Amino acid sequence: MKIALDAMGGDYAPKAVIRGANFALSRNPDLEFLLVGNESEIRPLLHKHHKLEQRSQIIHTTDVVTNEDKPSIALRQGKNSSMQLAINTVKEKIADACVSGGNTGALMAMAKIALRTLPGIDRPAICSLFPTRKGQAVMLDLGANPECTAENLFQFAIMGEAFGVALLGKKEPTIGLLNIGSEAGKGVDSVRQASEMLQTTQIPIKYVGFIEGNDIATGTVDIIVTDGFTGNIALKTAEGVAKLCGEYIKMGLTSSIFAKVGSMMAKPALKSIFKKIDPRAHNGAMFLGLNGIIVKSHGGMDHVGFANAIDVAIHLAKANINQRIIDEIGFSSENDADL
Amino acid sequence: MKIALDAMGGDYAPKAVIRGANFALSRNPDLEFLLVGNESEIRPLLHKHHKLEQRSQIIHTTDVVTNEDKPSIALRQGKNSSMQLAINTVKEKIADACVSGGNTGALMAMAKIALRTLPGIDRPAICSLFPTRKGQAVMLDLGANPECTAENLFQFAIMGEAFGVALLGKKEPTIGLLNIGSEAGKGVDSVRQASEMLQTTQIPIKYVGFIEGNDIATGTVDIIVTDGFTGNIALKTAEGVAKLCGEYIKMGLTSSIFAKVGSMMAKPALKSIFKKIDPRAHNGAMFLGLNGIIVKSHGGMDHVGFANAIDVAIHLAKANINQRIIDEIGFSSENDADL
Repeated sequence: MKIALDAMGGDYAPKAVIRGANFALSRNPDLEFLLVGNESEIRPLLHKHHKLEQRSQIIHTTDVVTNEDKPSIALRQGKNSSMQLAINTVKEKIADACVSGGNTGALMAMAKIALRTLPGIDRPAICSLFPTRKGQAVMLDLGANPECTAENLFQFAIMGEAFGVALLGKKEPTIGLLNIGSEAGKGVDSVRQASEMLQTTQIPIKYVGFIEGNDIATGTVDIIVTDGFTGNIALKTAEGVAKLCGEYIKMGLTSSIFAKVGSMMAKPALKSIFKKIDPRAHNGAMFLGLNGIIVKSHGGMDHVGFANAIDVAIHLAKANINQRIIDEIGFSSENDADL
Repeated sequence: MKIALDAMGGDYAPKAVIRGANFALSRNPDLEFLLVGNESEIRPLLHKHHKLEQRSQIIHTTDVVTNEDKPSIALRQGKNSSMQLAINTVKEKIADACVSGGNTGALMAMAKIALRTLPGIDRPAICSLFPTRKGQAVMLDLGANPECTAENLFQFAIMGEAFGVALLGKKEPTIGLLNIGSEAGKGVDSVRQASEMLQTTQIPIKYVGFIEGNDIATGTVDIIVTDGFTGNIALKTAEGVAKLCGEYIKMGLTSSIFAKVGSMMAKPALKSIFKKIDPRAHNGAMFLGLNGIIVKSHGGMDHVGFANAIDVAIHLAKANINQRIIDEIGFSSENDADL
């Protein structure tokens, strides 16, 4: 298994990338890395990790895509950027997957043009895991497609299911469509039509119907399907509320001397809870629907978070996620009645 | 100030309604109530609250709208329901406002037909307060309009601002449009166009631009404007995450003997935190944009929550919210250039 890393992408790159690679290697000793970026910055960091250095190859470039670059500019001027060259290794099948913590819009634009969509898939979607009461769930699209047709949503469901099979360790993850009520007539046309398509498809999936916003945290289903506008806002809303709750607890537990002593006693228990919702443990979003595995790490992640994104890439590559999507979409176009 | 109450609406009606009215009266001794519903159920409850009984009049009916009734059925068969008769008192200007904890869809359908929209307003929106890091914010639409034009969103902003002035105690609340990025080109057409309209309007409002999902809990702006699909899902997502966080904390604080002792010491501090995010303190959504004030209480609220919804109705009536909306929308149609 060979993973290409955009060594220059992310707020703490290249340090968090190299340390993340080392952390991932300690858990997966068979890994090999292609580290794409400025060798003069990467090499000194690599010297500290002997085993990683042995299993890594540097693809040198000094060009980088910044977070301020517009996707169109990055596409034109970033042909030799660490991001583009890392994607190219997947296109040329030199690497099994690529991980970048860089500019999301630029990464998506470059990946779309370099890799093209899978047969039967109209648009790629951004897909990620997040914590729920029952463990973890998958949500897509998280922002690539602000407006979606019923066909887009149907394809997202198939792609999300393949992602769930690879990462949740469930053979038949349940799928729900995000809506504003559970009754058949609720919501917008595209969502209602997608629901019909998912109910009648011959693909053996477990579609359970509409779910609502509160079902996201509850973990009512394993795979949550929605358009990129709603998905992006729901995810960021959830992150904002979780952060605020954490702050409130901290405020509460430090607001009096009794509370402080009490919180010290409860600390180990609270730590184990916070570990469950640690964003680093859920880091790594895939650009689903392309001919290749591109995983986006949050830009602000440290090495622990980046290593988790590498783990996501490994799981997806091992599960051969794209072949599963091609097979299911192909099966659908041969067997599903037109709606 | 006279408030009509749908005494039969909500999971704990009529008890929570009567007790809620009594609670609200203790805070606003000048209030008068029209209690609409089954007198044989209301009267015995009223006997327990002498002062409330003196300031209340019962409008007797045995018909009720249930939560299972479809809006279309409720409209046709509910002409004598407590919900419809309560709305009628606002239409006939016998009451200054109406509060119901009943079926949301039926209440909206009945209110729309009985009261009609305000001049210059195309569609009513559901609007409510919720807690943020900085205090409270206003969000609309929360589900009445799954699909919205730029004009709808523009009108929601003006209506939401009037709601904020009445309830937040701010003369110039800030307004933001919910989107998936803060740059000008982000999102969908309707949102981008609404942003232009809000930037160029001659109405003296404080529009700050696009905000993202995480800004909801942060309290970046006072008024959050979005379509009913996104708003409903964002609100329910936030409620789900807050509930899950609360459960995690409880789990953490009871998971060991040390944690239990610690949490007992921290209890008063934690209580004051939980009070801030108590959903009862933010109960009461207005159906904005109609010729009359209709406030919806959550169906599952107890008397404390219901009393808060009554307080919302009082504030809105005192602020003469609808006149402010009419003035501002009229000003806009006279002074704003067509986009």
